[in-house]
Amino acid sequence: MQLPRGFRMAGVYCGIKRNPHKLDLSLIVSDVPAVAAGVYTQNRVFSATVGYNRARTPSGAIRAIAINSGNSNACTGERGERDAAEMARLAGAACGVSEHEVLVLSTGLIGEFLPMDKIASGIRTAAERLNVTHEGLLSAARGMLTTDTHEKIAGRNVIVDGTSISILGMAKGAAMIGPNMATMLAVILTDAALAVDDAQALLSAVVDDSFNCISVDGHMSTNDTVLFLANGTQSRRALAGGDLKTFHAALAEVATELARAIPADGEGATHLVTIDVAGCATRQDAYRIAKVVAESPLVKTAIAGGDPNWGRIVSAAGYAGIAFDPVGVSLDLNGTRLYERGSPVAFDAAAVSASIRQERETHIRLQFAEGSASVRFWTTDLTAEYVRLNADYHT
Amino acid sequence: MQLPRGFRMAGVYCGIKRNPHKLDLSLIVSDVPAVAAGVYTQNRVFSATVGYNRARTPSGAIRAIAINSGNSNACTGERGERDAAEMARLAGAACGVSEHEVLVLSTGLIGEFLPMDKIASGIRTAAERLNVTHEGLLSAARGMLTTDTHEKIAGRNVIVDGTSISILGMAKGAAMIGPNMATMLAVILTDAALAVDDAQALLSAVVDDSFNCISVDGHMSTNDTVLFLANGTQSRRALAGGDLKTFHAALAEVATELARAIPADGEGATHLVTIDVAGCATRQDAYRIAKVVAESPLVKTAIAGGDPNWGRIVSAAGYAGIAFDPVGVSLDLNGTRLYERGSPVAFDAAAVSASIRQERETHIRLQFAEGSASVRFWTTDLTAEYVRLNADYHT
Repeated sequence: MQLPRGFRMAGVYCGIKRNPHKLDLSLIVSDVPAVAAGVYTQNRVFSATVGYNRARTPSGAIRAIAINSGNSNACTGERGERDAAEMARLAGAACGVSEHEVLVLSTGLIGEFLPMDKIASGIRTAAERLNVTHEGLLSAARGMLTTDTHEKIAGRNVIVDGTSISILGMAKGAAMIGPNMATMLAVILTDAALAVDDAQALLSAVVDDSFNCISVDGHMSTNDTVLFLANGTQSRRALAGGDLKTFHAALAEVATELARAIPADGEGATHLVTIDVAGCATRQDAYRIAKVVAESPLVKTAIAGGDPNWGRIVSAAGYAGIAFDPVGVSLDLNGTRLYERGSPVAFDAAAVSASIRQERETHIRLQFAEGSASVRFWTTDLTAEYVRLNADYHT
Repeated sequence: MQLPRGFRMAGVYCGIKRNPHKLDLSLIVSDVPAVAAGVYTQNRVFSATVGYNRARTPSGAIRAIAINSGNSNACTGERGERDAAEMARLAGAACGVSEHEVLVLSTGLIGEFLPMDKIASGIRTAAERLNVTHEGLLSAARGMLTTDTHEKIAGRNVIVDGTSISILGMAKGAAMIGPNMATMLAVILTDAALAVDDAQALLSAVVDDSFNCISVDGHMSTNDTVLFLANGTQSRRALAGGDLKTFHAALAEVATELARAIPADGEGATHLVTIDVAGCATRQDAYRIAKVVAESPLVKTAIAGGDPNWGRIVSAAGYAGIAFDPVGVSLDLNGTRLYERGSPVAFDAAAVSASIRQERETHIRLQFAEGSASVRFWTTDLTAEYVRLNADYHT
């Protein structure tokens, strides 16, 4: 995987997390001002960092992103806002850019103030270690993790405008959880050149079909953020026309691969569940049905138990608040038809159960007879281990 | 508790359930035609019995309700509709009333046809045992259970129009669950006289604040039904004015007591959680926030673990899709203030944790600064036992 040109990165441990074998502070710096776009949580209760970035994107001139894990700077009031601004100032000073060219991301404990002395020392150390190697990438990707079991990185190279450009993304998220932890964060970098409006429009579009189509426990975080930087060091002329379309497709692949990696690493999860909903009147109808099925504890426990329980899936679809003809509904699980146009069909329950148990991935396909809109959604199963991880914690 | 006059009841075992120590068929018969009202699941996928009753209520002339457990008659197509009608015909014949005066309830397995021979023999046996004693009530209340650990009965006596009238309710539900089981059912009987329109209006109103304010796992059943019969054997003149208000209040108490009993008996649950949401612009806003908090797996696992995790509660409120000023939010847990006007406050975490662990009931109070509307909602915690019960089952 070719790294995008003109970005330097590093991740370090600065003492925010208790475990010194983890990393908890990352810096990403562009050699030149980059076009920046952002998509943020819709939660009414949002972190200081979300407020800070939302006011500064889209932008034509961002140089750096400073990220800490272990503390979310959420529910921290005015002091939290001052801390977010100070974090940007510290990163700007350490990297030799204006504080107005810095975005900030936080993830971790809710309701505690950022330990600014540790943040300051972490930023200084990371700034000294910035580099353009895969090692720099790996450490930066690890510095943003909380309860994830591994870093999440995806990349694509495409030829546009006669030049090979790179798209590279990193993400964190393992449920909105982790004892008291919350959040999915992602940063996507490219050395292509993009107009500011195009960058924001592309990001919003690809997030709709990727990060907005995943669920682990349905609990929306205060900090969810996807940032996208395009520094144009490989294609100085802003992409347009067919090149923009080619780029869009590659960006969508990166976003989808990162998004899938989050429920695939869900806390306690033993299955990544892909839910295809098709034949709806609108994409929004399909989306709402998929989300309700994805978040039903009865569907999720059935998958955990290897049970091809079509009744739970069909009845979950029924309470999504979307009008549909029940007689038009068909359901496949791992390729086997369980329910056909409103009625159960005979199937080999033992074989379907075995297919669930033997594979890490489960595929649910719900077909309606209302139209031609569809959506793909990803979720986890629900295990006793998830409950244990989230119950056995004390503030 | 005074039973309402003019009703006879019985519950029997007829072989629908595997366990012969359980009951699985109940009959409730009114000596005279009763006013009947119903409230039904909003699920687009609904059982044949729901369709049957919905077409026949409100009504001025219902004599009997036939109930079976162990089989929900849902996702059974046209044959299911014929079976529901046949069940009404059998009950009418056995009880000496017209089949058009009979309502039918089913709960249990989805997607299997009713064993009509067992239903027929159960109805015959139950009709022979109909009686007006507490024993008849107990057996009828038990015949509707699935995975409930006990029957759920509530009653009130009130003086209206110079006469003592009785309201008696029975319900089932222990989550929408039970291996493949789904549903909450309730039947409320009174010997008061009511106009048909008043009966339906009262029932709809009290259900809004009771059965519509409970959640165990958020999975809406295909069979949810509340039926209300008023046979007027104690107050022949339809209640009106102040008497109607007095009756409404007592009916609300019965419905609320029955509704609370369902999450209190939730599968695997170790806590009944009462959620008060106040200070909202509208009751609907308060309701949506309460429901999202009630259904957050992170909130529910925190209660299971005895963790006063205010961050999970406040952030759940934030994603209900309701606009509010985060700085106006305060939160109390078991009477202790954890969060005050948008900021965490210092509190004795060990003491609050102990209060959760030591009591079977947990109380969450969320105060907003948007208006004066409020709602009370009940839910369960989420335990590893819930997951085990619902995963370790094979169709």
